[in-house]
Amino acid sequence: MLSHRIRYAPLKEKITDPAQAAAHIGDGTNLFISGFTAGYPKLIPRELVKRAKAGEKFKVNFYAGASTGDQVDGIMAEAGIVNWRRPYMSDRTMRELINREEILFKDDHLSSLPPLVRSGDWGKVDVAVVEVLAVTEKGHLIPTMSVGNTPTYVQQADKIILEMNDVEPPELEGIHDIFIPEDPPYRMPIPIYRASDRIGKPYIECNPDKVVAVLFSQEEDTCASFNEPDEVSLLIAEQVLDFVQHEIKMGRLPAGLPWQSGVGDVANAVLGGFMEDDFFHDLSLYSEVLQDAVLDLIDMGKVRAASGSAMTLSTKARQRFFKELYRYKEKVILRPTEISNSPEVVRRLGVLAVNTALEIDIYGQVNSTHVCGSHLMNGIGGSGDFERNGAVSFMVSPSIAKGGAISCIVPMVSHVDHSEHSVDIIVTEQGLVDTRNLTPRQVAEGVIRKCAHPEYRDLLWDYYQRALKKRGGHEPHLLDEVFKFHARFLEKGGMRL
Amino acid sequence: MLSHRIRYAPLKEKITDPAQAAAHIGDGTNLFISGFTAGYPKLIPRELVKRAKAGEKFKVNFYAGASTGDQVDGIMAEAGIVNWRRPYMSDRTMRELINREEILFKDDHLSSLPPLVRSGDWGKVDVAVVEVLAVTEKGHLIPTMSVGNTPTYVQQADKIILEMNDVEPPELEGIHDIFIPEDPPYRMPIPIYRASDRIGKPYIECNPDKVVAVLFSQEEDTCASFNEPDEVSLLIAEQVLDFVQHEIKMGRLPAGLPWQSGVGDVANAVLGGFMEDDFFHDLSLYSEVLQDAVLDLIDMGKVRAASGSAMTLSTKARQRFFKELYRYKEKVILRPTEISNSPEVVRRLGVLAVNTALEIDIYGQVNSTHVCGSHLMNGIGGSGDFERNGAVSFMVSPSIAKGGAISCIVPMVSHVDHSEHSVDIIVTEQGLVDTRNLTPRQVAEGVIRKCAHPEYRDLLWDYYQRALKKRGGHEPHLLDEVFKFHARFLEKGGMRL
Repeated sequence: MLSHRIRYAPLKEKITDPAQAAAHIGDGTNLFISGFTAGYPKLIPRELVKRAKAGEKFKVNFYAGASTGDQVDGIMAEAGIVNWRRPYMSDRTMRELINREEILFKDDHLSSLPPLVRSGDWGKVDVAVVEVLAVTEKGHLIPTMSVGNTPTYVQQADKIILEMNDVEPPELEGIHDIFIPEDPPYRMPIPIYRASDRIGKPYIECNPDKVVAVLFSQEEDTCASFNEPDEVSLLIAEQVLDFVQHEIKMGRLPAGLPWQSGVGDVANAVLGGFMEDDFFHDLSLYSEVLQDAVLDLIDMGKVRAASGSAMTLSTKARQRFFKELYRYKEKVILRPTEISNSPEVVRRLGVLAVNTALEIDIYGQVNSTHVCGSHLMNGIGGSGDFERNGAVSFMVSPSIAKGGAISCIVPMVSHVDHSEHSVDIIVTEQGLVDTRNLTPRQVAEGVIRKCAHPEYRDLLWDYYQRALKKRGGHEPHLLDEVFKFHARFLEKGGMRL
Repeated sequence: MLSHRIRYAPLKEKITDPAQAAAHIGDGTNLFISGFTAGYPKLIPRELVKRAKAGEKFKVNFYAGASTGDQVDGIMAEAGIVNWRRPYMSDRTMRELINREEILFKDDHLSSLPPLVRSGDWGKVDVAVVEVLAVTEKGHLIPTMSVGNTPTYVQQADKIILEMNDVEPPELEGIHDIFIPEDPPYRMPIPIYRASDRIGKPYIECNPDKVVAVLFSQEEDTCASFNEPDEVSLLIAEQVLDFVQHEIKMGRLPAGLPWQSGVGDVANAVLGGFMEDDFFHDLSLYSEVLQDAVLDLIDMGKVRAASGSAMTLSTKARQRFFKELYRYKEKVILRPTEISNSPEVVRRLGVLAVNTALEIDIYGQVNSTHVCGSHLMNGIGGSGDFERNGAVSFMVSPSIAKGGAISCIVPMVSHVDHSEHSVDIIVTEQGLVDTRNLTPRQVAEGVIRKCAHPEYRDLLWDYYQRALKKRGGHEPHLLDEVFKFHARFLEKGGMRL
């Protein structure tokens, strides 16, 4: 039994079963859950799905920190019980329903969401469901492997349901740093001066009178599975690291800027690159999601601090992390998304931001979210928080996808999430272009020559040359044929002529 | 004679004439000047043009704070002596040359530029030319009607040329607040907690040994000429103010958030709207360029603080401002652009950002810079600094332009500067859509019904409905006909069928 982890005795009386707890949730409930790739509740979602399968007709408006696992997004989407979902997801079924507008979805910059919730602009926070490691003597909450937006959800909730998990060891307590900034116009500076700074409390403040149910759970998050980085990811990572190293040696970039790196294989490869390298020491990460490679770097003594909003580890890495937690806890800090992604802090620290694009155009506009302009992939997540405000913003992508059927370098992206003004360095496995001191035409020449795949280079060059001659201007474009690449893909399954 | 304004005696020996001073500038010089819509030097540009007309072949790389007047951008562009120009301009001749790539231009977010210059990434700051009001006892510089990027340019310059102007009264001294933040990773919070806070010095620190020439000038900036706001601007302004007032009354927005408002008639109309209104008191402006309406609001006792990087006044307003400077100086603060546009400060203060679009699409993507995708108008300026980081971001535009030949609401914008994720409220004279809690499809329906001009509504609706049926997805688009509006305009001079 986990009841010793409830150090505030009155809450022991709230221990109940999922059915009783989920009775607080019905049709139209605004349901706000913990979770940011990890640390989401599992019992309540399953219970809700059970009720739906038993024939109950209801839908909830459902908000998390970011994506969750199949145990939440997947099964709730399939059961048809989601009306709204915000702010980011990566589940296949949910994606399909969002693209059919059967689930309503708004793609928010992650840092912008908590203040919007606090403003009441979304309506009330009816119920918050939070996965917790423990409850303190005063009834405050210790989260598990993510913080996300949970502090704001708990603060604003009418009712709170706790899912207490015993998968994570009690020693995880102390890894979190919880700070909710005052809202404007009375906000003071967020007092983070280095990635390693702790500015808050190790628990989420909670009025325990609002807790209506406590559940015990032994469910684990679906663990991430990382592939060994492929050659393309390694080539991209190598160029990013070489570039930064070169800039530091030339005196144009100071040493010691913290890194942010998006989720996925390329991101993991960038961090992996630090292992092979003997130039970078005392690394700071000021990022969103911390992945396996962070543990390796800590083991090598290369990390000064690793700050994020969540840890998403493979099963193996999780075991390792828990086993030597005392050691990793000195380096790892988990913060609310609003702080991990804060434009104020990102700009102050001078974060080197590395994020992945779906497609990049010859002038450096970036699509991170919509396939062929219309179909949502996952969402913008925190990439805009970092790309817009980082000291140097890298946008990385393989030059081709689907075995060459898709060129990730296109004449014009079919959807823009990050404008050329917010993207500094474009990298594919083919090459790198630093756009910061180039005109758009110079960017186009560079991107076509250096970043595009050789198979598509001539097609892109032909487009650009004709646009230059027929239309001219600061960013020559032929609007009547700018999406020919995409049209061919939609018609014939390939962007090639 | 103005020499009494040179309070550091050794600099009096540097008094010379424009020809001698301009001899420090030649082919390939990186020339960094003061000026942000106002406060630019006039004698050196004229001298350079004189030399060009006399047959000398040379080109400079020329950087200012933002746009300057015809006396700089206009005549230098015409004389063909500009190789590079950054970061923003609004001159007709220069625009043409930029669109022909005869002048190289990179469209920077204004807040991102000074650190880039300090990093040395642009190369050396060979010569800085600064319009000054006075020189202090230690050789520091008092700027005139703008601050822009001058503090960084002066700090980094090898040689400095001063143009001392006697058009502005000496009492202007004290209006500026100069603060250059330390660069990451050693930056501390920028200590502005309210728009009225002063955090720096009233002068630009300068090593007087770098001053190679001092010139006296009696040239005035080309003054702005403001039109009385037309009906369209008034309707837009009214809706913005009504919306904010409503949100405050509903308790969803706190009172007292500072305003930023772009340059131009709509911006002036928004500020004008405050005059008619008895809801808003104690206004704070945390903006870029302060225009005539600010003086009226101060006169009415409605302004707590007006912070910007420049004052651009009409001739009449200038006279009034200078006459009662003692009174206005209590309210007005001029800061470096890096501070006036700081993402850190904009997010902390919770700025209500109002900026003007060239065109907006049905999903809320915004084009601020490129006509029909290719031809640069002015530049993005500071709009991205404010739209991305403000508490609520308004994007405003008339629903039509050129007497109806252009619909400013289009199926897809032909260039994206601000993505839908960074734009909250869309306003035309026809109506307003708050996109913050809408899916893209709901945004499209709202924008077509409420913001589009009635003449274009059916065409847009027809496109949207067909995209919905034929393509579907989170943001339905028909890529093969998405730019038909623009194609018709380019072919026939009008977007109508």
